[in-house]
Amino acid sequence: MAEPSDRTASEPDEAIMEATYRALREHGYADLTIQRIADEYGKSTAAVHYYYDTKDELLAAFLDYLLDQFVDSIHDVETTDPGERLELLLDELLVKPQENSDLSIALLEMRSQAPYKDAFSERFQQNDEYIRYMVKAVVNHGIDEGVFNDVDADHVTRALMTIVNGGRTRAVALDDNGALETARRTASEYVDATVRRQSQ
Amino acid sequence: MAEPSDRTASEPDEAIMEATYRALREHGYADLTIQRIADEYGKSTAAVHYYYDTKDELLAAFLDYLLDQFVDSIHDVETTDPGERLELLLDELLVKPQENSDLSIALLEMRSQAPYKDAFSERFQQNDEYIRYMVKAVVNHGIDEGVFNDVDADHVTRALMTIVNGGRTRAVALDDNGALETARRTASEYVDATVRRQSQ
Repeated sequence: MAEPSDRTASEPDEAIMEATYRALREHGYADLTIQRIADEYGKSTAAVHYYYDTKDELLAAFLDYLLDQFVDSIHDVETTDPGERLELLLDELLVKPQENSDLSIALLEMRSQAPYKDAFSERFQQNDEYIRYMVKAVVNHGIDEGVFNDVDADHVTRALMTIVNGGRTRAVALDDNGALETARRTASEYVDATVRRQSQ
Repeated sequence: MAEPSDRTASEPDEAIMEATYRALREHGYADLTIQRIADEYGKSTAAVHYYYDTKDELLAAFLDYLLDQFVDSIHDVETTDPGERLELLLDELLVKPQENSDLSIALLEMRSQAPYKDAFSERFQQNDEYIRYMVKAVVNHGIDEGVFNDVDADHVTRALMTIVNGGRTRAVALDDNGALETARRTASEYVDATVRRQSQ
């Protein structure tokens, strides 16, 4: 699970994260510089360096920030019906990113760098673990309520995340926004066919 | 579909592709240089440049070479039973890469660069199209033989490729070889639940 530092909550940090978001969308990961983030921030590079020593440290914090954003959006999902809640989670994971293809490009670049950068690798693992934790809770809830089959909740969760990551990778690498819709449909088919208890 | 140039079949080219394979596995995409490929090739950089003007041109040819390798491995699949043939295709796509995680890392780096490099983007799109063409032929064959349900073959193929790409991305970004096994299991579950005709 992500452990946002104490600084994450403070005002200037939020502004730097928003500046990073804009700079990443505009320049991508490879061409991102502290200068470009500072430009979006509207302050000097020294003002950015006051909070973060290196670009990679800042980007690791940015991955925490994205998880926080995602968690906030999930907290807004009010239904407690497990079937509906699972579909809404999948919408957050596969429909929302359709509005944000520039950020998806930067995120795939960062994912591809995870084998070389421990700070990224840690964040991606923590974020994946946390999202799986949320999905798995819904699956277990559905099993308990008798609306889902008695499935292997851990595997089902990983299967759904595989479909999510596949859709995102395909959207970027094949320049095909339809890939997210295909993944969304595949996830529903998988849930309907293996997870949802069919009325006899 | 990939269009290998005439040079692809010639001897020195094959040796350069094998050298590129080794250099990519050792150094990754970002640190790959013509010098490093030449070192593996056992000749001068001029000998490499005789065939390829730039690193990216060489790597685009390397993506063609990988597709050719894959197509060769598929030609070795002798069974014509659609169910078995589909499972064997999925093995080629998800089990074989487990032996090759270094190459998978380099490939994800190249996928993430596709939005910036037309030559990569074209190759990934062509390769995906060709693999989908092969998978779809098997699905249609199974439908014709009455062993598969009358599914939307195009969608099923894209769904399976989503699972394949998801497993590969997760294996690299999360440093988790188990991700390929999870994807393989998910693909079989998807096929069993939605594609295979269940005996009544």
